Amino acid sequence: MKTPICDMLGIDIPLLAFSHCRDVVAAVTNAGGFGVLGASSHTPEQLEEELAWIDDHVGGKPYGADIVVPEKFAGKGQKLTPEQLQGMVPEAHRRFVADLLMKHGIEASPENVVEAFGSGMTDDIGDRLLDVALRHPIELIANALGVPPTFMIDRAKAAGIPIAALVGAKEHAIKQVRAGVDILIAQGTEAGGHCGEVTTMVLIPEVIEAIEPIRRVPVLAAGGIVTGRQMAAAVALGAAGAWTGSVWLTTPEAETAPHTVRKMLHASSRDTVRSTGRTGKPSRQLRSNWTEAWAADGSPEALPMPLQSLISEPSLRRIDKLAENGDEGAQALATYWVGQGVGLMNTARPARDVVLTMAEDYLDAVQRLTDSLAD
Amino acid sequence: MKTPICDMLGIDIPLLAFSHCRDVVAAVTNAGGFGVLGASSHTPEQLEEELAWIDDHVGGKPYGADIVVPEKFAGKGQKLTPEQLQGMVPEAHRRFVADLLMKHGIEASPENVVEAFGSGMTDDIGDRLLDVALRHPIELIANALGVPPTFMIDRAKAAGIPIAALVGAKEHAIKQVRAGVDILIAQGTEAGGHCGEVTTMVLIPEVIEAIEPIRRVPVLAAGGIVTGRQMAAAVALGAAGAWTGSVWLTTPEAETAPHTVRKMLHASSRDTVRSTGRTGKPSRQLRSNWTEAWAADGSPEALPMPLQSLISEPSLRRIDKLAENGDEGAQALATYWVGQGVGLMNTARPARDVVLTMAEDYLDAVQRLTDSLAD
Repeated sequence: MKTPICDMLGIDIPLLAFSHCRDVVAAVTNAGGFGVLGASSHTPEQLEEELAWIDDHVGGKPYGADIVVPEKFAGKGQKLTPEQLQGMVPEAHRRFVADLLMKHGIEASPENVVEAFGSGMTDDIGDRLLDVALRHPIELIANALGVPPTFMIDRAKAAGIPIAALVGAKEHAIKQVRAGVDILIAQGTEAGGHCGEVTTMVLIPEVIEAIEPIRRVPVLAAGGIVTGRQMAAAVALGAAGAWTGSVWLTTPEAETAPHTVRKMLHASSRDTVRSTGRTGKPSRQLRSNWTEAWAADGSPEALPMPLQSLISEPSLRRIDKLAENGDEGAQALATYWVGQGVGLMNTARPARDVVLTMAEDYLDAVQRLTDSLAD
Repeated sequence: MKTPICDMLGIDIPLLAFSHCRDVVAAVTNAGGFGVLGASSHTPEQLEEELAWIDDHVGGKPYGADIVVPEKFAGKGQKLTPEQLQGMVPEAHRRFVADLLMKHGIEASPENVVEAFGSGMTDDIGDRLLDVALRHPIELIANALGVPPTFMIDRAKAAGIPIAALVGAKEHAIKQVRAGVDILIAQGTEAGGHCGEVTTMVLIPEVIEAIEPIRRVPVLAAGGIVTGRQMAAAVALGAAGAWTGSVWLTTPEAETAPHTVRKMLHASSRDTVRSTGRTGKPSRQLRSNWTEAWAADGSPEALPMPLQSLISEPSLRRIDKLAENGDEGAQALATYWVGQGVGLMNTARPARDVVLTMAEDYLDAVQRLTDSLAD
């Protein structure tokens, strides 16, 4: 296949795969797509290890790295220690989480629900992760939250590596293109993780139209895309290809908690919800007693980033372990980021199979359109 | 063009246009698409007049009628008079609306904010509207809310006219196909008017997959579709064509309040909201002080259908008139149903132009996909 993104990145299929798991990244790249390692929760040492492993497994084929540096977060620029950040979590929020866990039969106290997390989300660590990434033959740097910081754009340009940024509204797309990004990932509200309110079907043409007078950059469509027919729909809308995430979560290569994989395989598109309960910003995930609790009347408002993660991540990791051991309370609470496309993810298949099936389904969709013009 | 829906309805372009305005219906049908008159707010006498006019203007080309009979509404089966229905509106709601109007400089009292409306939403009137419709050469009967009542399905089948029904979730699609509908309109959350939570990009393949084991019927994609590239995306997803509504609202043929047309032409996709404040069920419309007021903390919950319309419609009609005369309070309150596609509706063009532009844009999108397979 041949779209602007295939030429730009040197790939056969206009399919980019975001994953925290190096095995998924390598499998997609080896199948002709483009794997992107989500590196935001890695230390520089871990990232070095992961990228070295990928280099050993893709035989020079192209891949990329996603390094999240949010524009705004609590304590930004203040160089706070993990302990200082922990101290910023209000007592009411600690108690709310402890009560929620207790109600589900999980022992907890307001003191022990907070742990250090999210320390990767600073300019400083972003710079160090970038150092590591640039020592490897990466072909794309992505930033999934807000406008990439200037140092990131400058260093990517100096290294001759395209930089991609994620947007959920045309206003953000305009800002990103003005800041100098090379590829836009326009992500609809159906996407797993952080997302806006506009759907992929509307957002893609709206973003393309909005940036046209400024600078034409390739736009990747994201949000809900887990099949080849949706990838074809994205190209019909004017996108250069698809950016995917959810569809890899149920592959055996991914490190998704097994109980969550089963929830996903049985979920319909209506089993996801856009909730602030995990990171403090609206992010789409499986609906569970955790997301319902944060949305309920009288519950505290979620904290700003990264404070909400300090109370959500430790609990949700504990919950995943308990859920796997059959704990029913934990199973009711367990959640993970996934898009509405989860309704179409009904079998667990290796990542390579997913790529090849999507390519076939894409061809069928193009045929369907060609047939629609026949007499 | 040629899709299953083109064959079934005898049309050149797989584009169906829902409109309350006969001029739009005739213009779309005459341009090679298929116009569907929204007849739910008509009396049988008015409907007779509208359909006779359409017959005189389409020269035998095919068109349809949409007759809404909701499955559930307050007072259903009780044959209540308009006065009895009015009596069911709580004092708190009357006062809330009166206060909201007063705050915007519009005189009102709790007594005068309620008027008879929505009397069309009963089985009885549905039957009489159907009598009228079946005396005309309609080629489609649509029901935009819930499973069509049995009498409607039976009478359509007896007359040999396909019956279409609107769904926003795969579970509803299964119910509809089992009930015997001939065409499904799968409508994403980006749609104007009543809508569910699943986006068009995910809903179309999910619905097609869900009904496959039961009975394969053509699925029309609805929600956010205002361009030909989106129509092509719908066909890529497996849809037989597109069902549209919003895009006709800014055509000169439509009877949309002029102030609202201007709001729409300037709106972005994020200027719509799914609100219960108009009908009692979530429906997407322009975000305004009216929708914000019903969503605010401490505001009363919207009433069940058709009671909410008894307090919203009279006020919103008054608001439209005042807005047109330059009243700023009314302009801030004015709203109307429209989908997120409003962000792509930036010029007012005749309905015939819209059809022809969409057809051209569809061809370009197919070309883009064909090109993506070239070496």
